[in-house]
Amino acid sequence: MAVKVALLGAGRIGKVHAKAVAATGGAELVAVADAFPDAAEALAGSYGARVSTIDDIAAADNIDAVIVCTPTDTHADLIEKFAHAGKAIFCEKPIDLSLERVRACLKTVDETGATFMLGFNRRFDPHFRAVRAAINEGRIGEVEMVQITSRDPGAPPPSYITSSGGIFRDMTIHDFDMARFLLGEEISTVYATASVLVDPEIGKLGDYDSATVVLTTASGKQCTISNSRRATYGYDQRIEVHGSKGVVSAENQRPVSIEIATADGYTRPPLHDFFMTRYTDAYAAEIAAFVTAIEQKQQPSPAGEDGMRALALAEAALKSISERRAVGMDEI
Amino acid sequence: MAVKVALLGAGRIGKVHAKAVAATGGAELVAVADAFPDAAEALAGSYGARVSTIDDIAAADNIDAVIVCTPTDTHADLIEKFAHAGKAIFCEKPIDLSLERVRACLKTVDETGATFMLGFNRRFDPHFRAVRAAINEGRIGEVEMVQITSRDPGAPPPSYITSSGGIFRDMTIHDFDMARFLLGEEISTVYATASVLVDPEIGKLGDYDSATVVLTTASGKQCTISNSRRATYGYDQRIEVHGSKGVVSAENQRPVSIEIATADGYTRPPLHDFFMTRYTDAYAAEIAAFVTAIEQKQQPSPAGEDGMRALALAEAALKSISERRAVGMDEI
Amino acid sequence: MAVKVALLGAGRIGKVHAKAVAATGGAELVAVADAFPDAAEALAGSYGARVSTIDDIAAADNIDAVIVCTPTDTHADLIEKFAHAGKAIFCEKPIDLSLERVRACLKTVDETGATFMLGFNRRFDPHFRAVRAAINEGRIGEVEMVQITSRDPGAPPPSYITSSGGIFRDMTIHDFDMARFLLGEEISTVYATASVLVDPEIGKLGDYDSATVVLTTASGKQCTISNSRRATYGYDQRIEVHGSKGVVSAENQRPVSIEIATADGYTRPPLHDFFMTRYTDAYAAEIAAFVTAIEQKQQPSPAGEDGMRALALAEAALKSISERRAVGMDEI
Amino acid sequence: MAVKVALLGAGRIGKVHAKAVAATGGAELVAVADAFPDAAEALAGSYGARVSTIDDIAAADNIDAVIVCTPTDTHADLIEKFAHAGKAIFCEKPIDLSLERVRACLKTVDETGATFMLGFNRRFDPHFRAVRAAINEGRIGEVEMVQITSRDPGAPPPSYITSSGGIFRDMTIHDFDMARFLLGEEISTVYATASVLVDPEIGKLGDYDSATVVLTTASGKQCTISNSRRATYGYDQRIEVHGSKGVVSAENQRPVSIEIATADGYTRPPLHDFFMTRYTDAYAAEIAAFVTAIEQKQQPSPAGEDGMRALALAEAALKSISERRAVGMDEI
Repeated sequence: MAVKVALLGAGRIGKVHAKAVAATGGAELVAVADAFPDAAEALAGSYGARVSTIDDIAAADNIDAVIVCTPTDTHADLIEKFAHAGKAIFCEKPIDLSLERVRACLKTVDETGATFMLGFNRRFDPHFRAVRAAINEGRIGEVEMVQITSRDPGAPPPSYITSSGGIFRDMTIHDFDMARFLLGEEISTVYATASVLVDPEIGKLGDYDSATVVLTTASGKQCTISNSRRATYGYDQRIEVHGSKGVVSAENQRPVSIEIATADGYTRPPLHDFFMTRYTDAYAAEIAAFVTAIEQKQQPSPAGEDGMRALALAEAALKSISERRAVGMDEI
Repeated sequence: MAVKVALLGAGRIGKVHAKAVAATGGAELVAVADAFPDAAEALAGSYGARVSTIDDIAAADNIDAVIVCTPTDTHADLIEKFAHAGKAIFCEKPIDLSLERVRACLKTVDETGATFMLGFNRRFDPHFRAVRAAINEGRIGEVEMVQITSRDPGAPPPSYITSSGGIFRDMTIHDFDMARFLLGEEISTVYATASVLVDPEIGKLGDYDSATVVLTTASGKQCTISNSRRATYGYDQRIEVHGSKGVVSAENQRPVSIEIATADGYTRPPLHDFFMTRYTDAYAAEIAAFVTAIEQKQQPSPAGEDGMRALALAEAALKSISERRAVGMDEI
Repeated sequence: MAVKVALLGAGRIGKVHAKAVAATGGAELVAVADAFPDAAEALAGSYGARVSTIDDIAAADNIDAVIVCTPTDTHADLIEKFAHAGKAIFCEKPIDLSLERVRACLKTVDETGATFMLGFNRRFDPHFRAVRAAINEGRIGEVEMVQITSRDPGAPPPSYITSSGGIFRDMTIHDFDMARFLLGEEISTVYATASVLVDPEIGKLGDYDSATVVLTTASGKQCTISNSRRATYGYDQRIEVHGSKGVVSAENQRPVSIEIATADGYTRPPLHDFFMTRYTDAYAAEIAAFVTAIEQKQQPSPAGEDGMRALALAEAALKSISERRAVGMDEI
Repeated sequence: MAVKVALLGAGRIGKVHAKAVAATGGAELVAVADAFPDAAEALAGSYGARVSTIDDIAAADNIDAVIVCTPTDTHADLIEKFAHAGKAIFCEKPIDLSLERVRACLKTVDETGATFMLGFNRRFDPHFRAVRAAINEGRIGEVEMVQITSRDPGAPPPSYITSSGGIFRDMTIHDFDMARFLLGEEISTVYATASVLVDPEIGKLGDYDSATVVLTTASGKQCTISNSRRATYGYDQRIEVHGSKGVVSAENQRPVSIEIATADGYTRPPLHDFFMTRYTDAYAAEIAAFVTAIEQKQQPSPAGEDGMRALALAEAALKSISERRAVGMDEI
């Protein structure tokens, strides 16, 4: 029996997940809800699903799972609602911008025993998974130092910044999760420095567009994250993990891999210019993993705690900037 | 109104095309026919299509197009039948192993005015298309010399060889088409040499597993094709086009692009090991182009003549081997 | 008239410089001094130079310049002696491990007007120079973020650690200089974290073998340095400079650039395994620049102040580790 | 005792060899002869050698070896003269443009028992040597197919063409030798096609500037050579050897390995633009091998027969073009 899925939120990322559900054997998109009925209708129509409402979906017996792609400030409430309604929940990150609220929400998830998965899509990128697999297989020995380069093709509009919680909660949060995914040990201290080099408007909103973060673990492992809201050459997403026996790295991805050589030199086209084309495979694999977890009645990963810890690292980074020192995670 | 498509042949490549139809906006898979009813049923079921027969499909008013994925020796007859039936036809290469039969079949296509497209999937590979686009944009000046490296991960079973028409009609035929696609000028002479280095069984059947072909055009352009039925490191598919201003090349594709460096050196995983994973995007784009041509009532490309010319090049290669000399295309 | 050069110290790096002098048109190695007469004699013999003493070289009318390759703790005294003797001086880094002593020494250099050059060889590496040139030409716009990866093939013996001043004064000091070379703006704050992951003996001596440093400038530029005393795959020396218009990077160098592909994947040999083979060209270019400066009666670069500033950054890094905070360069 | 070497011919390649002798431990350049006394004097002066004449060098007791860098049409006579004079001989390729003359000359070399080495410098390129070593170590199994890409940065002046014997005797000859070096089996047939695509002046002289050659061996090994007198992006020198277990390839070499990425894509600088910078290491290693062979009283490799066989392949290529067929080496 196919897992019956409802989609909450028919925006950009909602469409990505709808397509992923349709492409997943064993899952069926049955309902779509959105504050804008036209958006819901258009998306539902494409996949033979019905338009519905949050309440009806929560009440529907024949819906097994919801995918939450609504605005961030509704996430925690919806998670709690659907946890109580007994649905499996996949929620786009972040759960909430407030660590307090996240903790309360996850308490509910815990108490209801709800199946809950958080949308850290990069964990499902085939290249990053292969990096993790190489580590697991002992190819590089004991992990020692991690370098994450994560640069967006362009800065988001100022309006996005204000609701996103800023660069650390919106952008670096993916890298914090990736650091945890790769280090294999919880992070104990965070140092961050940041500046406004790309867009002064971002600075006026109290946020940054260029940041460097250094993470350490109790055993002395080190991780650096290099972030920028600008990468003219495309979506720069590289990972490099050094271990006692060697290093494993994931290269950048490009839509077209040709090279032209002339008297001016050798030229290759830019990288993917958008997260949705860069991470197409990751989004599909993520939803497939969610569906598999439901089928096998297991808790999926990444879980709520992963979201909470990544958010706590973002808070530590902000505190580090303001106090110009390394902040212990036990302080957060 | 969506283009209604029937699939003839529910085997390996039939499944690829069924999926491509489903993924193409504006197309709908409505019927599947196969000599093995179970295969037809399984595939039809996955896409909400009905199981049907060749005759019923030819007679059906509400079917616009057929995709022919049946065994090679049925292609020409089916093309003629559906040309007379007024359906748009997409046929897997080759049309037939006999040049005579191909010519007769294409005459029928011509006389009926049928919409006809041949499955040279590589023309739709995004990387090779980008090579062609770079040439069109004048990035490398006038095309002068082309190098095509095309090596299969492994040799097919001997049973396949006997029905495929041998390495030139089955494998090199793609490279012949690619040479024509890239040279921008018809080929005037063919020289080929071939040997059995991989599997003696192939030699016993009178075929080869390792071949080198040199093509020339009237203006002096040169193209080399290097073929082998063995490539331990994966499906080796490279193209390099030298022009008066520079060179454009398409690199190999790998499913995972990580690199591991240890005391033993730097290692990357092997290439794709199968044409269906290597050319996933090409197969999808090919069917989308077929559907678009139907919608826009235009003749699609590559057309029947492209199939005929590639087959003639294969015949010239065989003649060249037997006579140890360059064969003029006017001799074929 | 060729510049007449004397070499002080006939050890490993002394031999490199002797060879560089011999290969430089317009320079001649005329004298060699070393505490071990055999070493001096062997090296002098290879280049038709005479064995001499520090005092005789200082007094010799027909010697224009000295290259100081003696142990670190003799550098400052020798610089002062030869500054007073009116010789042009090339000194291997560092001038001294004490910032106080360095300042005093450079005061003498200043007062005597001596021609003085410090051996930061990496500034002369053709690849790093090309990075700097690309920046100068405006290819990447305004410099924003720099990433330096610098990993030694293996840890030095503990005896070396004790006299070298530790990882920051011995190894990172090159990266500090490279950061200054590339940022184009003086560094204002230093954050460092370090641990012992490679060799516990290094830890017993109070030093580290794995370090991450973050540098910032007043305008908000950021630079990260990633250091390790271990790189099984060879001498890892990469630089990446991000600017407002793009990024320029220098790749690693390998003695042999072949690739072998088999069923196990694609493999390239390891990198250079030693700084002398990795930086062969840089050492030659460095001495050529010193000789040119003498010929043209100009002050060479990098100068004493570059050595002093790099050393001050090393001190700031150590202070940062001990206080777990970003240290302002105005505190040093 | 150092091997005493005389240089015949103080032109471009003579200077390269003079430098190589100077850099070779155990060898000393003692005499230089050239039809232009100024050239001889300038070069002799740089290395402390004396200016001399052919006859005096042949008669000199204290000269062990000669390096012949004079015009091609003097090679065979000089080889014979110095073979009779009992000197070890290193001669730039070719021995002569006439196969008849080469055979006669090598007979003399044979009869006198002279130490003789031919200047196929590419055999000493560290990257190509590593390819050969990988084959010897069995890394790719049994050699099956070789692809040689060899494209000059620019066409030589017409005056050079007339005396060089044309593209096959002057340029492809290196690739013929490389094919023999890599195939490990003598070549049995040659097919060649060529055209004039770069410079019509070359065509007027009866020569070609673009050529493709296919070589086969008795056991069915195949080798393709792709030649052009034009490569806007630098000196294109690639080798790829496919075997039963995999492939080994040598990549192109560039003087500076940086990469710049902007909105226009990723760009690397062009390759070396000249054979002397591309093959610097090879020239040095070649002379060192010659000196070692003299010291160890062994016959060096490549020998005269290698020169003769490469020249015979060039003749076969010309015959193949004129007869538009594969030519057996037993016909030459």
